[in-house]
Amino acid sequence: MPTVSGQSAIPKVDTPVNYGVVLYPYFQALDVFGSLDPLNSLAFEYHLNLYIIAATLDPVSTRPPDDENPKKSDFAQSIVPTHTFETAPPLDVLIVPGGRADQAVVDFIAKLYPSLKYLFTVCTGSGIAARAGVLDGKQATTNKMEWEKTIALRPQVTWITHARWVVDGNIWTSSGVSAGMDAMLAFIAEIYGKGHAEKISNYLEYKRHEDSKWDPFSDLYGLK
Amino acid sequence: MPTVSGQSAIPKVDTPVNYGVVLYPYFQALDVFGSLDPLNSLAFEYHLNLYIIAATLDPVSTRPPDDENPKKSDFAQSIVPTHTFETAPPLDVLIVPGGRADQAVVDFIAKLYPSLKYLFTVCTGSGIAARAGVLDGKQATTNKMEWEKTIALRPQVTWITHARWVVDGNIWTSSGVSAGMDAMLAFIAEIYGKGHAEKISNYLEYKRHEDSKWDPFSDLYGLK
Repeated sequence: MPTVSGQSAIPKVDTPVNYGVVLYPYFQALDVFGSLDPLNSLAFEYHLNLYIIAATLDPVSTRPPDDENPKKSDFAQSIVPTHTFETAPPLDVLIVPGGRADQAVVDFIAKLYPSLKYLFTVCTGSGIAARAGVLDGKQATTNKMEWEKTIALRPQVTWITHARWVVDGNIWTSSGVSAGMDAMLAFIAEIYGKGHAEKISNYLEYKRHEDSKWDPFSDLYGLK
Repeated sequence: MPTVSGQSAIPKVDTPVNYGVVLYPYFQALDVFGSLDPLNSLAFEYHLNLYIIAATLDPVSTRPPDDENPKKSDFAQSIVPTHTFETAPPLDVLIVPGGRADQAVVDFIAKLYPSLKYLFTVCTGSGIAARAGVLDGKQATTNKMEWEKTIALRPQVTWITHARWVVDGNIWTSSGVSAGMDAMLAFIAEIYGKGHAEKISNYLEYKRHEDSKWDPFSDLYGLK
């Protein structure tokens, strides 16, 4: 992507450089790539590093377990990690996609959170962060279809029903799947400057929702 | 995702089962996952297979070449192929993401097209299909920012400026990056029934553009 020039907004001085995303089996692909692809573009404008972190260095697949694959489909994508929970370097931002993470992922988030500049979750990723205790006493949102199941994981969190995404301190939580795109573009606007977010949205031919309270799915799923 | 029930639209009888996506270095991640993730959901409703096809079985990375990485970022994702151009099985649908494919990809599309039920391209993927000659005499669209460069690849194609996606016969071409999501959801609506497209959109918390002529980016980039 060509270089952005003539930014009107002034980016923060100490912008994040080192991003990590945690993967585990049966993660939701668009949770990961809806939030990473805007950063793929931003990496042409800022020096950024990405660490893809999992339990081992084996590729991690979106494949559902056999007992949740009613049509016996063979339809999955596998991503290659760069680091394990043990070898992950210090990070500025950790991205947590939705799915059913085991305790090792939860422990990794709990261990890493105090050294992060930002924690960014997509979809039920906020449920995983909640299990790590890092959302206690904070406002957060999550997937609206999986709402009840997710918020039951941690009543110490102030769960916000009607939100595309929620920011509380240094924690960004987004609603389901594609909401990660809007939340990441809002994050880029906030941290690196609005011009970058607009340029990247236009490059991706994506009309982003700029209002964090835009949430027709909260109503659709009957949440109060 | 739970099973869809009470579909109002009647799906086509002979629905596609075997999907392929062709990968090559420096592909656009969201071209691939914006179109695949709705199919990941559909695979809970229909028996579907996915073949990830590349020159070799080595993981394929989104990483830009060194001379197009001005900030020397280390920011990329690698996907594991399941088949090579030589070992790919017969397919019903081939998905072609955007980027700079070499002649081997072009030759693979040309070879495979006569046996496909559908060809589906995202972003500048239509330029790759055009190079294979399979779009000659057909209507197609492509990325609006890369418009002039892409259409110059093959003047025998009737390039449509103002379109989120274009269908001509069994070829679906979408505009840039995120347009692949709308085009794939429209494809699912057309082939498997509108109820599936709606259910999947709601699950992804994505308000899809249902009008194939919705295209603010054509105007943004000054295309006539």
